[in-house]
Amino acid sequence: MKVRQIYPENRVVLREVGLRDGLQLTKGFPDTAQKLAWLRAEQAAGVRHFELGSFLSQKHFPQFADLRDLIAAVAPVPGCHSSALTLNERGVADALHTNVDEIVFVMSATESHSQANTRRSRAEAVQMLTRINAQRREREDPPVLMAGIAMAFGCSLEGQVDPDAVLRLAEDCARAGADVIALADTVGFGGPRQVAALADAINAALGADMPVAMHFHDTRGLALANCAAALDHGIRVLDGSLAGLGGCPFAPGATGNAVFEDMAFLCDSMGFDTGIDVAALKPARAILESALPHEELHGALARAGLPNVSEPA
Amino acid sequence: MKVRQIYPENRVVLREVGLRDGLQLTKGFPDTAQKLAWLRAEQAAGVRHFELGSFLSQKHFPQFADLRDLIAAVAPVPGCHSSALTLNERGVADALHTNVDEIVFVMSATESHSQANTRRSRAEAVQMLTRINAQRREREDPPVLMAGIAMAFGCSLEGQVDPDAVLRLAEDCARAGADVIALADTVGFGGPRQVAALADAINAALGADMPVAMHFHDTRGLALANCAAALDHGIRVLDGSLAGLGGCPFAPGATGNAVFEDMAFLCDSMGFDTGIDVAALKPARAILESALPHEELHGALARAGLPNVSEPA
Repeated sequence: MKVRQIYPENRVVLREVGLRDGLQLTKGFPDTAQKLAWLRAEQAAGVRHFELGSFLSQKHFPQFADLRDLIAAVAPVPGCHSSALTLNERGVADALHTNVDEIVFVMSATESHSQANTRRSRAEAVQMLTRINAQRREREDPPVLMAGIAMAFGCSLEGQVDPDAVLRLAEDCARAGADVIALADTVGFGGPRQVAALADAINAALGADMPVAMHFHDTRGLALANCAAALDHGIRVLDGSLAGLGGCPFAPGATGNAVFEDMAFLCDSMGFDTGIDVAALKPARAILESALPHEELHGALARAGLPNVSEPA
Repeated sequence: MKVRQIYPENRVVLREVGLRDGLQLTKGFPDTAQKLAWLRAEQAAGVRHFELGSFLSQKHFPQFADLRDLIAAVAPVPGCHSSALTLNERGVADALHTNVDEIVFVMSATESHSQANTRRSRAEAVQMLTRINAQRREREDPPVLMAGIAMAFGCSLEGQVDPDAVLRLAEDCARAGADVIALADTVGFGGPRQVAALADAINAALGADMPVAMHFHDTRGLALANCAAALDHGIRVLDGSLAGLGGCPFAPGATGNAVFEDMAFLCDSMGFDTGIDVAALKPARAILESALPHEELHGALARAGLPNVSEPA
């Protein structure tokens, strides 16, 4: 799987991360049949990129226990791509026993968060990425390797994050063998001018051959403003989750990821063809409503519907 | 009252329109004491521009029956400005008996909506604006005259709106004597690129001396993305309502105006000094919760709080 098969140049790709990021804080989670119904409904609407879970202990993370089944379900759909998080070489080994199209390895933009979250330095994380790159390349047709940089727009421990430190880390990841870099506003600290500046800087630093993804949380209502700024500044890969599923471990009660269907509407309004039929996402959302009856679902389009033109009275 | 007293050049002004637009669709409405508490709490947070109601029949619009009391309450606060809608010369005559700082006259961007909503053509609306301008100038210290153009980014009857028609109407309003032009996305059809293009065009058409306001509804989740685009393209006056109060007559259940507190946070994040202490808006919101117990309040910041930096565990 080559990176430009997943992320064609000059095409906006919206990654559905609800099955992974969206299920990290929910109390319950959909069973496999419900997940597959969710997946199929979004596939029918034209969604092609799914982050399906994390290769983690099934005992501690039962919501991802069926990850292999989901990967197997996505594989036969033409043009559809599966992605999964791997936290270390063991997770990568597990991933390489599946036909997942992309593995994601996440590190932190700040030293404090890196140590607090993983007990490793950022430099050690880059070394691990180097080993993971070698490990995946042992396979004839290796999965794409995405390096995710959490807290890239603000850190729950350090507050403001030096954009130059993010750029240096992104360059280190590229040198370590990542095919694509993802910058995440994990805690919803970022604003659109910050996004625009970092998008310009990272595109200049990494060059046109390296796709850059951005991952926004709507914690403080700015996810779509940040998506718009990213699109205006050359970013072509954005993460979201249906109904904004997810949340923020540092702000209980906060909204979650960028609302996928509203993000798709934003892209339409900006003239980007995502291949997604926004109206067709509605049935997928209905599946979530029944699969997660106690979860608050978000999103403006679900309340208002698409723009509606009526005859004069 | 000169227009640059209300809208100083190069300063971002956030207009609180909740007491007017926010109360057009609510089932109940706050009593005068609750409105005054709301006003005072926002004044304490640094809000300086309030659209307080419409000069309309008290019988049919009881929510605006205390408009004169609110205007009188705002007047003594240093640097604080009151605004009110006037639908015709009679409303203007009423307004001129108060010391309101600004009167707003709204017309439609499209011929269909103009006829359906007011039974006048756009040309007739401009003629009325000309008469209103003469009428207010009979007073020694006339209020500022804002011309609002509804449906400027899309029309519930005509769908897409020709931006050139909006520009021509805005120029007609300027010639008719308006001090400030406001473009409203009344039904939430607009997207950030459309906003950026219209902002550039109207600023070029009207010149730097004429302040231009924009008024976004969050009907489809794009209000803050549209605010960001407007700010990036020279717009310095934005409307919003605390807790996003308001709604959309064409989309029952939809969210309302841009959420004032989230919009203020956006401005902070973009480096614009609005003079508003975002954290201090919280008590104002609490007043709304008790004054409108059956109304759904919106906004991400109210759920998540301001960005919070904690010590590493």
